Amino acid sequence: MTLRMLADGLGVSVSTVSRVLNSPGDAALRWGSAATIERIRAYADERGYSPNPQAASLRTSRSGLVGVLVPRLQDFVLATIYEGIEEAAVENGLSTFVTNSLDDPGAQRARSQMMIDRRVDGMIFGDAHLDHLVVDEVADRGVPLVLVSRRAGDHVSATCDDVLGGRLVGEHLVRSGRTRPAILAGQAFASTSHDRVQGAVEAFAEAGIEIPRSRIVHGPFDAAGGRIAAEQLLAAGDVPDAIFATNDFAAIGALGVLRDRGLRVPDDVALVGYNDTPLASEILVPLTTIRSPMHEMGRRGVELLIELIGGGSPAPELLEPVLVVRETA
Amino acid sequence: MTLRMLADGLGVSVSTVSRVLNSPGDAALRWGSAATIERIRAYADERGYSPNPQAASLRTSRSGLVGVLVPRLQDFVLATIYEGIEEAAVENGLSTFVTNSLDDPGAQRARSQMMIDRRVDGMIFGDAHLDHLVVDEVADRGVPLVLVSRRAGDHVSATCDDVLGGRLVGEHLVRSGRTRPAILAGQAFASTSHDRVQGAVEAFAEAGIEIPRSRIVHGPFDAAGGRIAAEQLLAAGDVPDAIFATNDFAAIGALGVLRDRGLRVPDDVALVGYNDTPLASEILVPLTTIRSPMHEMGRRGVELLIELIGGGSPAPELLEPVLVVRETA
Repeated sequence: MTLRMLADGLGVSVSTVSRVLNSPGDAALRWGSAATIERIRAYADERGYSPNPQAASLRTSRSGLVGVLVPRLQDFVLATIYEGIEEAAVENGLSTFVTNSLDDPGAQRARSQMMIDRRVDGMIFGDAHLDHLVVDEVADRGVPLVLVSRRAGDHVSATCDDVLGGRLVGEHLVRSGRTRPAILAGQAFASTSHDRVQGAVEAFAEAGIEIPRSRIVHGPFDAAGGRIAAEQLLAAGDVPDAIFATNDFAAIGALGVLRDRGLRVPDDVALVGYNDTPLASEILVPLTTIRSPMHEMGRRGVELLIELIGGGSPAPELLEPVLVVRETA
Repeated sequence: MTLRMLADGLGVSVSTVSRVLNSPGDAALRWGSAATIERIRAYADERGYSPNPQAASLRTSRSGLVGVLVPRLQDFVLATIYEGIEEAAVENGLSTFVTNSLDDPGAQRARSQMMIDRRVDGMIFGDAHLDHLVVDEVADRGVPLVLVSRRAGDHVSATCDDVLGGRLVGEHLVRSGRTRPAILAGQAFASTSHDRVQGAVEAFAEAGIEIPRSRIVHGPFDAAGGRIAAEQLLAAGDVPDAIFATNDFAAIGALGVLRDRGLRVPDDVALVGYNDTPLASEILVPLTTIRSPMHEMGRRGVELLIELIGGGSPAPELLEPVLVVRETA
């Protein structure tokens, strides 16, 4: 009998069941009405469910360890978020482990297990997929967890408001008179891709401009991914007058492709990145981009996790993006 | 009475004294002759020296934890080395902590203390300074340690053969007919700067070309640092026909400055970076650079540390650099 089976049988979320069953007496009332609490407890009793002993020991004997899982630490964004995590962890007397999953579900599961074996008090995931299958499994086992960078399901998270970020980009390009935008959308399994695209598409739609599916190209977020996506876009023969690359490195990759084809940036094609990594301001034609509060995201991730570990029930947080206008758009 | 005081009194290195005093019976013979071993033991006895109890417990009750100190994890090079460290650590049943020192000696000391408090079995430093003051202090306390990225003193290390790397660059530029080279040298306290400059200067000297001090500019290794150093170089009015930037990001920063001034790369000024980070091949004019085996360096760091912890006495290792010729030189 797992939390998931209880949740399915009850028709409520796994997190709600977990929170209720781990909160003694009236403490559970913050998660639902008295009637709901009663229903959940009775159902769990009937089915002989007993809470994960490891979860119980997590509450009583803390290891002071937090496990952090990221797709790739070489990614400037995740390295910066991790610096924020480390800083807040040290301030709070915690230590962190960080390891790569390369966005592979098998590795995500194996690394999570390794961290659970090490008796982490909680985990921070920077690599959640929109289907949130792996994080659900970890949550099911009673491990307190928080997401950073990418949100998923109803898990507690600290992320940039990527829908707003995408919207800021779209509105800026509309104001600049662009009417044939394209998007280098990143990886479809990531909320960063999904939400940034959504925001941009909405902003253009409000200006009466629809972005055809052929001009929204998915692929890796890095420089090579941006190059390949831009080549794919231009191979179709339909040259956009603006490209929103949902990551600065993808934008840099696209920049090379545009120049190779004699297209001037921004005169022929406006280009916008995302994250405002240091290179954005240092390259030949400084990149217009969205500043994402990466370091703060890491800090909030730890602070939210500490609340969770302590029995709290914080809400997911969206941190504010800022449009940084430079020369490419 | 510290190891350092013993070492000074004996006229031998701290590492030798530490190894001898921590090796029972004949095991100490790998560090020196029988006469030397006897002399060291007698001297320590006379002065009432007793080994650090923490060091003794490190040998007997292993925590399985390794502390890793880097200047900045956002630095692609250190993040890549750390991935290698993590990979080898996991394979060997070890866990690592990593934290930034920002190359500040105060922070290096404080972070090292934090790791010692956490009873790490050993440490890996990616931020050693040529004066090796901080790593000496940590070694003095009996903590097994290995250096990666930067070498220092006679500490066990896994680094790129940076003298050879600098030489490969110098020889390539000489072959290309360049006679007025300049070097964006990075930080003088780092062996990466010192050794790369040394190799390049030697290669040019062998071709009868001396590089004046005014054309060797120190500063941060990153893109902004490269930009500032390049501006400083050109402000003097003396335009070089080749620039060796001892880091790819510094090269990218310099590229912007050269273009701003209407100088063509490579036609007017050849440009070479170092490390072969992914961006090097992705930017507008792909960068000629030195490939440094960063991931392998991290792996070897862990393997050497395991040898040390086990009582071994490995030698410092130099990993092979490879010249990667692209379009900037």
